[in-house]
Amino acid sequence: MEKIFVHGKDIPLQDLGGGTSRRILSYGEAMMQVEVHFEEGACGSVHTHPHTQTTYVLEGEFEFTVGDQKDIVRPGDTVYMPSGVPHGCVCKKAGTLLDIFTPMREDFLK
Amino acid sequence: MEKIFVHGKDIPLQDLGGGTSRRILSYGEAMMQVEVHFEEGACGSVHTHPHTQTTYVLEGEFEFTVGDQKDIVRPGDTVYMPSGVPHGCVCKKAGTLLDIFTPMREDFLK
Repeated sequence: MEKIFVHGKDIPLQDLGGGTSRRILSYGEAMMQVEVHFEEGACGSVHTHPHTQTTYVLEGEFEFTVGDQKDIVRPGDTVYMPSGVPHGCVCKKAGTLLDIFTPMREDFLK
Repeated sequence: MEKIFVHGKDIPLQDLGGGTSRRILSYGEAMMQVEVHFEEGACGSVHTHPHTQTTYVLEGEFEFTVGDQKDIVRPGDTVYMPSGVPHGCVCKKAGTLLDIFTPMREDFLK
């Protein structure tokens, strides 16, 4: 089951609590794109998963941790999170991330 | 060899000709993020590759073709291109796409 064309405005934001919300965009077995919206101060707690992830900062400012590396990222900046490496972020200025996973996050559809 | 944190402003745009240019952002073996900038009327000719690709529209307006499907996409809209499926786009209003590939495009680094 693939979603070839997904228009962001057609997908309501799903409240995740803690000042974060998300919309699941196009996906298929091999990849999934997800917008995640953060209020200032909201966190993506450090966690790990077998999926490789990349993130592109659409808006705002975030402090990211990937393994033992830390950096501040802003619009147009990007992060690569290898499979199984612990990662997380703290939102310094309200904004939006685009997270992409390979393979897709089947757990997000449950 | 992985690029965990890549700041967009640190990467010069590489002119690809035909009104398009790109910057390669974070990547590792499993994925690569690439910004592609288009002038109005520029084309990504229909082509195919074994990598699965997703695209997120950052700016502008594009007509995309994926297999036998066609759609107009704008900022916040997304496209999924399965491995081996022919795809291409025409830029209707100057803008920028974020393309993500799995696995990474080793050919882009040559």
